[in-house]
Amino acid sequence: MRSSAPEAEFAPILENAAAKGRVILVCEHASNAIPARWGDLGLTADQRQAHIAWDPGALALAKGLMRRLDAVLIHAPVSRLVYDCNRAPDMAGAMPARSEVHDIPGNFVISPAERLARTEAVYLPWASALHGLIARRVALGLAPVIVTLHSFTPVYFGKSRAVEFGIIHDNDPCFAAALQDAALSQTDLRAEINQPYSAADDVTHTLRLHATPYGLPNAMLELRNDLIATDAACEAMAETLAPVINMGLEEIQRQAKAS
Amino acid sequence: MRSSAPEAEFAPILENAAAKGRVILVCEHASNAIPARWGDLGLTADQRQAHIAWDPGALALAKGLMRRLDAVLIHAPVSRLVYDCNRAPDMAGAMPARSEVHDIPGNFVISPAERLARTEAVYLPWASALHGLIARRVALGLAPVIVTLHSFTPVYFGKSRAVEFGIIHDNDPCFAAALQDAALSQTDLRAEINQPYSAADDVTHTLRLHATPYGLPNAMLELRNDLIATDAACEAMAETLAPVINMGLEEIQRQAKAS
Repeated sequence: MRSSAPEAEFAPILENAAAKGRVILVCEHASNAIPARWGDLGLTADQRQAHIAWDPGALALAKGLMRRLDAVLIHAPVSRLVYDCNRAPDMAGAMPARSEVHDIPGNFVISPAERLARTEAVYLPWASALHGLIARRVALGLAPVIVTLHSFTPVYFGKSRAVEFGIIHDNDPCFAAALQDAALSQTDLRAEINQPYSAADDVTHTLRLHATPYGLPNAMLELRNDLIATDAACEAMAETLAPVINMGLEEIQRQAKAS
Repeated sequence: MRSSAPEAEFAPILENAAAKGRVILVCEHASNAIPARWGDLGLTADQRQAHIAWDPGALALAKGLMRRLDAVLIHAPVSRLVYDCNRAPDMAGAMPARSEVHDIPGNFVISPAERLARTEAVYLPWASALHGLIARRVALGLAPVIVTLHSFTPVYFGKSRAVEFGIIHDNDPCFAAALQDAALSQTDLRAEINQPYSAADDVTHTLRLHATPYGLPNAMLELRNDLIATDAACEAMAETLAPVINMGLEEIQRQAKAS
């Protein structure tokens, strides 16, 4: 398939484009790369490796799921601290001045021109490619299902988080509910709906922009990152979650036929 | 501003791109042009001039409003019978086999490959350019308001339509309600909400895809096409509606401040 934005410097990366499965895996926080034009944003090397810069483990987990589900995968090539592709350009979190307990000095003062430049460099190529991917599959009658993949830090503002697998929805809770049922019946994971965040925290921009307008089943999956800290752990988690996602798909297909 | 899809053969047309006003005018059915590769779709010359191929008067009205509101305007260069940019690729109306009492022979059998080809040729460049226009203005803090402009036939399936000015909304009715109040107080037009169509008829795809995800005020305006049948009538209608839209904008600004 032709990319919608072949000229983009920071074009998203598309894998398994000819996938036969319904699922489109989306990984907005796959990379902690900060392109040279933004220097180091005033961060230490440790900070640039930390969860504030990306979602550790999310991409490796996504690739494991991609292979098991025969899913297409799209992931962003730039750190969320430059532009968080799961945020609209006017949201504070799109180019955050602070993330958890960390200041982001390079984002303290962002002029309208700089906000526009980052939107054009990172967000528009991302949105155009993801929209093109979805619309092409809608045109072909492939009934896409949108699954975004994230990880969260086990300790946030000094507090431990008990949830292991968060399943977040926007307006349509059906697929998220089916996934939680499957996770609770098939795994030992502590699986909770709308934890550790919910749509009220502005985390469902991708779902709102790309799934809801087409009426596509969708959910945002959040794994606690200590459970996917190594490549082997990511593979094991993909092995655990692939049947959960397949069960969720079967349930929404059953509901669609019954309605 | 750089186009998101400079390579597109049927790229949408952008006018007054540096406009200072909040309103983005959108005209999906501006043109009745059928590019050569689709022949005449099996239609007579009269049919290709009729309301089934486009919204007569909508573009001239949009240009009149563009000048009076200092609004940016985007319009599609291809007939809705090739691809209706106000429809998702899986909707029957995207490439209709029948429109009102007219068969569209060239759309009787559309293979998945042809559906994909039209989506790529017309819909994706349109959606990418409109999204880019909106996201850039959101990034710049220009608080865009989306107004789509349409016209409808005075006689439909043999029945006369009394409504003159239809104001259609999707999930958020606020701007539509403000516009109806303004129209009823400032004009003699018979102005009705969700007439002659409503969101249930799949006519709000543009609003759902481009306005709702960003929380932007939005409405779809429908003028009965006998009221905008000449250039002079379009200019007169623009002169009538520009203050209506400005009053509607003032009202939603007042509501935003009060909340």
